[in-house]
Amino acid sequence: MTSPADLQTMSLTDLTELAGEIRELILTTVAKNGGHLAPSLGTVELTLALYSVFDFSRDRLVWDVGHQAYTHKILTGRRDTFHTLRTLGGITGFPKRAESPFDSFGVGHASTSISAALGLLIAAEIEHVNRRVIAVIGDGALTGGMAFEALNQAGQLKKNLIVVLNDNEMSIDKNVGAMSEYLSKLRLKPQYHRAKKEFEGFVRNIPFRDISEKILLAANSVHAGLTAAIFPGAIFEALGFTYLGPIDGHDIKSLKEIFSQIGVIDSPVLIHIHTTKGKGYAPAESAPEKFHGVGKFDKATGQVLKKKSPPSYTEIFSQAVIDCAARDEKIVAITAAMPSGTGLKKFGEFFPRRFFDVGIAEEHAVTLAAGMAAGGLRPVVAIYSTFMQRAYDQILHDICLQNLPVLLCLDRAGLVGEDGATHHGTFDLAYLRTIPNMNILAPKDENELRQMIFTALQRNFPVAIRYPRGAGLGVTIDAQPQKIPWGKSEAVMQNPAADVTIFAVGTMVQACVEAEKILREKKISVDVVNARFIKPFDTEAVKKSARTSKLLVTCEEGTLLGGFGSAVAEFLSDEKISTPLLRLGIPDKFIEQGTRAELLDLCGLTAQKISQRIAERLHEIIFGFLT
Amino acid sequence: MTSPADLQTMSLTDLTELAGEIRELILTTVAKNGGHLAPSLGTVELTLALYSVFDFSRDRLVWDVGHQAYTHKILTGRRDTFHTLRTLGGITGFPKRAESPFDSFGVGHASTSISAALGLLIAAEIEHVNRRVIAVIGDGALTGGMAFEALNQAGQLKKNLIVVLNDNEMSIDKNVGAMSEYLSKLRLKPQYHRAKKEFEGFVRNIPFRDISEKILLAANSVHAGLTAAIFPGAIFEALGFTYLGPIDGHDIKSLKEIFSQIGVIDSPVLIHIHTTKGKGYAPAESAPEKFHGVGKFDKATGQVLKKKSPPSYTEIFSQAVIDCAARDEKIVAITAAMPSGTGLKKFGEFFPRRFFDVGIAEEHAVTLAAGMAAGGLRPVVAIYSTFMQRAYDQILHDICLQNLPVLLCLDRAGLVGEDGATHHGTFDLAYLRTIPNMNILAPKDENELRQMIFTALQRNFPVAIRYPRGAGLGVTIDAQPQKIPWGKSEAVMQNPAADVTIFAVGTMVQACVEAEKILREKKISVDVVNARFIKPFDTEAVKKSARTSKLLVTCEEGTLLGGFGSAVAEFLSDEKISTPLLRLGIPDKFIEQGTRAELLDLCGLTAQKISQRIAERLHEIIFGFLT
Repeated sequence: MTSPADLQTMSLTDLTELAGEIRELILTTVAKNGGHLAPSLGTVELTLALYSVFDFSRDRLVWDVGHQAYTHKILTGRRDTFHTLRTLGGITGFPKRAESPFDSFGVGHASTSISAALGLLIAAEIEHVNRRVIAVIGDGALTGGMAFEALNQAGQLKKNLIVVLNDNEMSIDKNVGAMSEYLSKLRLKPQYHRAKKEFEGFVRNIPFRDISEKILLAANSVHAGLTAAIFPGAIFEALGFTYLGPIDGHDIKSLKEIFSQIGVIDSPVLIHIHTTKGKGYAPAESAPEKFHGVGKFDKATGQVLKKKSPPSYTEIFSQAVIDCAARDEKIVAITAAMPSGTGLKKFGEFFPRRFFDVGIAEEHAVTLAAGMAAGGLRPVVAIYSTFMQRAYDQILHDICLQNLPVLLCLDRAGLVGEDGATHHGTFDLAYLRTIPNMNILAPKDENELRQMIFTALQRNFPVAIRYPRGAGLGVTIDAQPQKIPWGKSEAVMQNPAADVTIFAVGTMVQACVEAEKILREKKISVDVVNARFIKPFDTEAVKKSARTSKLLVTCEEGTLLGGFGSAVAEFLSDEKISTPLLRLGIPDKFIEQGTRAELLDLCGLTAQKISQRIAERLHEIIFGFLT
Repeated sequence: MTSPADLQTMSLTDLTELAGEIRELILTTVAKNGGHLAPSLGTVELTLALYSVFDFSRDRLVWDVGHQAYTHKILTGRRDTFHTLRTLGGITGFPKRAESPFDSFGVGHASTSISAALGLLIAAEIEHVNRRVIAVIGDGALTGGMAFEALNQAGQLKKNLIVVLNDNEMSIDKNVGAMSEYLSKLRLKPQYHRAKKEFEGFVRNIPFRDISEKILLAANSVHAGLTAAIFPGAIFEALGFTYLGPIDGHDIKSLKEIFSQIGVIDSPVLIHIHTTKGKGYAPAESAPEKFHGVGKFDKATGQVLKKKSPPSYTEIFSQAVIDCAARDEKIVAITAAMPSGTGLKKFGEFFPRRFFDVGIAEEHAVTLAAGMAAGGLRPVVAIYSTFMQRAYDQILHDICLQNLPVLLCLDRAGLVGEDGATHHGTFDLAYLRTIPNMNILAPKDENELRQMIFTALQRNFPVAIRYPRGAGLGVTIDAQPQKIPWGKSEAVMQNPAADVTIFAVGTMVQACVEAEKILREKKISVDVVNARFIKPFDTEAVKKSARTSKLLVTCEEGTLLGGFGSAVAEFLSDEKISTPLLRLGIPDKFIEQGTRAELLDLCGLTAQKISQRIAERLHEIIFGFLT
């Protein structure tokens, strides 16, 4: 097979054989590189069927989230480079426009595909290009509100959009919500897929009197189950879509059949297919959430290869919230489809009545929390930093404007590594800092994270704590967590008559402590301060250091525009302090994938590079500008 | 009537009489103060019926958006102060927790009520308080994705949430979308409101064989209309809600009946009521979009009292986009339920195929635009600054990460006046500036807005233009708009050997030009620069001024945290420039309602206060710090 077009003439036997080869390639690569195994194993047949019916040099395919698109990548010229998946300079884990013309829309965050596909379809019409546009969306991503917003418009525009609902009963963990229950009911029904034309005449011929009065009355009943049973897909039909399905999403023949038939339907179509996450690899089929996004593992056994490492920030967060909740019944926890990822699963086992998984619905999660806080509770909302971007307005308008005591816990803050540009949590300090009443903290290690959670849950206003992906530093965890003085920084390394004071945020504290050692060897005396608070930050400490140091440095794993360093620059300017400031952080561009270490190095945030930049700047200050 | 509890014993006649009095009070007050007339006139009977059945000292009521809550305010202790509506220090135009214990959740942005109400309900359960919680949401707000996210969770939790769907076929303009069409079909059906208990036995007794095969087959048909006709509320039923309705929302008796009956239903309930926006006031009934949010008007004639004023920024935007679109077929325009408010209605009349109203769905609007841009079009998305907050993630992830040429036009940027804290567009510069690839412009007057639109639509990357509410300055509009040099500021006022250079953003240019006059009289020589670009801003001009001036000043109608002044502070710090910087803008707190002039004065952004602060700071610089 050399080009995707070849698939259109391939026999079913050949396609099935190819499916096996692709599955093997995905499995081998992900075992080595890590990646989104289970979602991509679930869509091999779907992708082959799509490519064997449609011509994607003309038609357009938009994958929602994109973690299921490995087959798509392999089929579109990236088979030979697939071994570089998710590595620095290699191919990305998600569709990306710059990577291939077949990646018609870049994705990474959930629920965008129907909007984007509708946009592509409208563009084709206006440009007088005849093309089909297909969005493939999981049942999990369908719970995201913007998917509904897009269905609502598509249903009215009546354009020939094709939505493939890839129902695997999962988002990342087990899917939740009324829509999910509804889809379960649909799955119990026999297949009813027929094309519109075939039916239209038939429907027109049903005399209305045949619909007995009993049925009419029952129709108004409250029995949602019955409704669903009688009218498969009623919810989509009501929104103007033609519903077809459910169909076995691993049966290439059935898939090809239905894709070939829908050409005649003159309305938006939703094809409900049922797939198995992790299909074809037993360990993934039996533990799909573990193999959703997975690190390196042993292909033979499915054993994940874990380096022995200290407990992760996520684990410490999880236990800290449970400990607090054991003492305070008002504490409740909310996740947006990430009980495992955020560590709240365990909370849910301890306190099932106080645990809420809202599905992929960050906006609702945050306003739900605001409502709970208005009702007297103390909600903890754990969402990855990158996904919290979805709820910027709700944080501002529903939590902060009302100054409600909600604790936002932003996991995976900073550079996340292999997931790349769509997933780095590098904007949170900047976007949260602009919001009045918001308080923002970042711990230097996992023990401090625990202290911060205890401290924040005793405060009666909005607080956000951001912490990185992965293992902690391995520090000792206090049996009894200390309360952190509000708004105060912590002197980590103090030297007599230091020339330089570094205010480091979170993960950067350790890097700066190491940088101090390097600088000490160069006879440069440096104080290192753990900022702890980004808002309100410790203005007294900054002021004091500004008086005694020749150079102030801020260092953060976040964007330089509007972040912590920006706050310090604003403060120095407002306070008329002229001590030079060196701001270290992520530059104003999107950072691609790579290991965390590689990316930190790229951004100049290793101890080596931090120390070098400080030494250079100090040299300038003491000896004048280099020219 | 002294307390809301009195309503529970009032006769129907008295309630009807009270409705008349309230309507009169609303009408008189809004005619004088301006406000949301049509929505509030539409909910007088609904509010009375709710208060006459429920006890809101125990139960909780959440109004979505809140522009329909005037009756609620009048009934809950704010009758005597109602004349201060929307004025500085007076009562706000929206429910607000600080204002009354009956305002259980503050609102202003759409689609939050179901989330908040569910949060309040969960809180009550966990706190073992027996209370009903009711969300009242319009059919417009229901198109917002987060409302769907909340329905999805509520339907699964099966809590006794009550959602009143106030269907008036409008959001602000005529409502759009498949859901809207679906509701129209429901409205054609006779009333089927029965409580669950009554039906359950009945449904159980329908033998399944009665559901004929024909019906079963038809069930799978593509005929959404038929589905809707047979199963009223199927969409809500499928989501786990009991659907009741439609009910005449102006018939207090029917409303009271249904509210009294729902106690027996053991599931979330959605009550579909049908109301008339502007009810009881002929001019508003016949032009509900004009009277949605209205300025002062003559009660007798419905004539809006307009001061003769220059064309608004909105009007200039509208014409500029039309002019561009006439020459470039790739230009399309998107609004989120605000065709009139954003001025795009006229675009839609000229170019119906290239105009898209997506409903209250800012997230979808932005990603749809990204999809269109990926498909080769040049989309213009016009959304009020405050509502654009909803799409922060989509701007970042779908537009800027892909560097797609979408033009975002943020109307009502800065302080909006009487709508208050929930509606000020004061965060946009800060939250947009943190996003890589984003370009941000703000015009000093309406002619420059026109120039900026022409210029931006020739650029091949993301651009945001923000401009204020209301009338322009009355400057001459170029017949042939000039192209603005990218990233360059404009010297507006140059003085020989100026001590001070002000870089002013947008609306603040004029204020600073006036401040310059005041300062000139005090013998202080000031240059005024129109920044034009917030990102990328004119670093050369800043550098040059820093060399020649004793003081740099930034002035913006936006938050000081992370805004334009922050960008300049970062730059000066990074460039090791020690020229003092005075940053003028909105302080880090939420600003309440008042006239724009009052609020600008409160924030120190009048010519008088600007000149005073500059004079003081310059005095400090020249003569040393005041102590």
